[in-house]
Amino acid sequence: MTEYEIKVSKRIRNKIFGGKQVFTINEVQKREYPVGSLVKLVCGNKFVAWATINPKNPKHYIRILSTEKDYDLYSDIVNKLKIAQRYRDKIGYSRHYRWVYSESDFLSGLIVDKFENIIVIQNTNPYFDKNINIIKEAILDVGKNVETIYEKSVGKNREKEWLPPKERILYGSKTRTTIKEGGKKFIVDVKSGQKTGWFLDQRENRSIVKKFVYGKTLDAFSYTGSFGIISSDKADELWFLEKNRSSVEVLIENLKINGIDNAKVLNTNAYLVLKKFSAENRKFDVVILDPPDLLSENYKKGIRSFILVNSMAIDLIKDGYLISFSCSQDLKEDKMFSILRTLIRRKSRRFELISRLHQAFDHKVIFPHKELEYLKGFVLHIW
Amino acid sequence: MTEYEIKVSKRIRNKIFGGKQVFTINEVQKREYPVGSLVKLVCGNKFVAWATINPKNPKHYIRILSTEKDYDLYSDIVNKLKIAQRYRDKIGYSRHYRWVYSESDFLSGLIVDKFENIIVIQNTNPYFDKNINIIKEAILDVGKNVETIYEKSVGKNREKEWLPPKERILYGSKTRTTIKEGGKKFIVDVKSGQKTGWFLDQRENRSIVKKFVYGKTLDAFSYTGSFGIISSDKADELWFLEKNRSSVEVLIENLKINGIDNAKVLNTNAYLVLKKFSAENRKFDVVILDPPDLLSENYKKGIRSFILVNSMAIDLIKDGYLISFSCSQDLKEDKMFSILRTLIRRKSRRFELISRLHQAFDHKVIFPHKELEYLKGFVLHIW
Repeated sequence: MTEYEIKVSKRIRNKIFGGKQVFTINEVQKREYPVGSLVKLVCGNKFVAWATINPKNPKHYIRILSTEKDYDLYSDIVNKLKIAQRYRDKIGYSRHYRWVYSESDFLSGLIVDKFENIIVIQNTNPYFDKNINIIKEAILDVGKNVETIYEKSVGKNREKEWLPPKERILYGSKTRTTIKEGGKKFIVDVKSGQKTGWFLDQRENRSIVKKFVYGKTLDAFSYTGSFGIISSDKADELWFLEKNRSSVEVLIENLKINGIDNAKVLNTNAYLVLKKFSAENRKFDVVILDPPDLLSENYKKGIRSFILVNSMAIDLIKDGYLISFSCSQDLKEDKMFSILRTLIRRKSRRFELISRLHQAFDHKVIFPHKELEYLKGFVLHIW
Repeated sequence: MTEYEIKVSKRIRNKIFGGKQVFTINEVQKREYPVGSLVKLVCGNKFVAWATINPKNPKHYIRILSTEKDYDLYSDIVNKLKIAQRYRDKIGYSRHYRWVYSESDFLSGLIVDKFENIIVIQNTNPYFDKNINIIKEAILDVGKNVETIYEKSVGKNREKEWLPPKERILYGSKTRTTIKEGGKKFIVDVKSGQKTGWFLDQRENRSIVKKFVYGKTLDAFSYTGSFGIISSDKADELWFLEKNRSSVEVLIENLKINGIDNAKVLNTNAYLVLKKFSAENRKFDVVILDPPDLLSENYKKGIRSFILVNSMAIDLIKDGYLISFSCSQDLKEDKMFSILRTLIRRKSRRFELISRLHQAFDHKVIFPHKELEYLKGFVLHIW
């Protein structure tokens, strides 16, 4: 193997030892090494860390792999998978969970989700991309009864790294399974599903939201229906809005396998329906709003969409609960709360804050990578 | 009844209609009406609200009672108790909970906690003080199987209102009961207990903290042991620190009725023990820090105490969890997080944020009374 080397300053060395795992092109020596090369970072003549380089992505130019001099990818991954597994075991996450959460598990750029015996990988690290078979082997060696390993390395974050989208089975053949949560069953279809097939980050929130559901409940941006279905015993009328056709198909199956036969499913754009319902002066007791990341493309436009959708949702509630989420990393919790508060007050409505919600315990946030914290939500009683 | 009247501006009238329930002496017309008088607030010649006045407390000079012209204390309390009850029922709080949380339940200054058949009142509203028997009757009429009503109107907030401390049985005779939470039993002694006898605000947090407990766990400022006891199945060694003698007596009983015989209970000042343990280089896997309000008397001194106690706690952890709370209204969540982050970084230690914790769902926060939000906590993995 060609040995590439990059010099780093004492400041950067200290940041690496302090846990920082991603550096921009302005922070370290510029080198035109091939995308995904293994590089040795040195300070003076001293070894600092092994890293991988992506000269095409100035924001994620260097990703730290390990500060151990004696680095071997296979044993490093095995070790990190075991530690990550031990943590999930300890907190009682057993059958489905995010097994690897990027920097938080010292595997920058790598996401590994587990749904029963199906493992889904989502990767943006070009070094892991080149060594995906080693990662596969490590998962098979550490994981128990793994039936399938599915790679779903697609989407905007791949594009930003100049890496081609990759979606394929790496091992096995099963791409669909059933998980259980909150006493309900859910089909996870990793092939047709959004993200890795299921929103693990809302785990605790689903059981909290259930406490507040009653009467006529609207689950907007419902995806395959997790919020509504987990809360279904408490609602008199359950409405789901979902734009994506294949998500709606799974949602309908989920309703069926849970014996819910009185739900209304609208396969349509949530904005249009909210607008229509709003114009028709329809009322709901509970509105659950869990939109996709509205801000990722354009902050200003995203904020406007966020305001619009929440404003319409508030109009649908006479005296009841708005449960509003944002998974946009760029929308801070304080800002989101202030938007909601202002909206409610401008409509001369009153409200109380019942609860602040965050991401699940497997989506832990390592210092200094605070960007790993992104999910926030509020349970508001509005009247 | 003498009819007292106070004029308010349009601005204040709008604030009242917007939900503000407490006004300072600078916001309304000054009047030397007797403490706890019922006053009619008018704007121009128009009725705005019924309120009570306390000319001795410039900060809580006026407390709104009702914006209904036709006001009757008994029926108003009965109505508000029923609404408050309905909410607690809905979220599944059945046998012990905060039944009335001051402004959030439109009973400014009044706290009503329920522990099985024992009701505890803590009041700082001088009008309710004068009419405590009407409140007692309303509680007996709305509550189911109430055996005891205990008034515990004591402490600094009473002093600030220039109201004498009152601690007495208003109805019945039983002052001790057993509640169940998280599969464990706890004695609540409303006579000897701190606050109203049990910290209801940590309800959800106790079940979250349990997920992270393992190995050698220290429950500092443990009061009657709720965090440690609920988590006891997961700890190998359980240490409790509590200064108050009567709390320790109840703690020891709580350990006994839950069959926990290997816990270490130190009836002592937590600061001294943490300092000693720190000096002896003792290590724990989990440290739970739930100190009393350190900032209420003196902000600067309180912050210093907060920093000191958290700093010592961090030193006790080699690789494990710090679960740190603050119930100080003056210490904001961001500030608390920044203190903890700085402490850990200055010690050249590393950490990850696992979870942000808040007060229980019966401690809801009505707009604009954001001061009702006070409890915050963090689960941090430190190594």
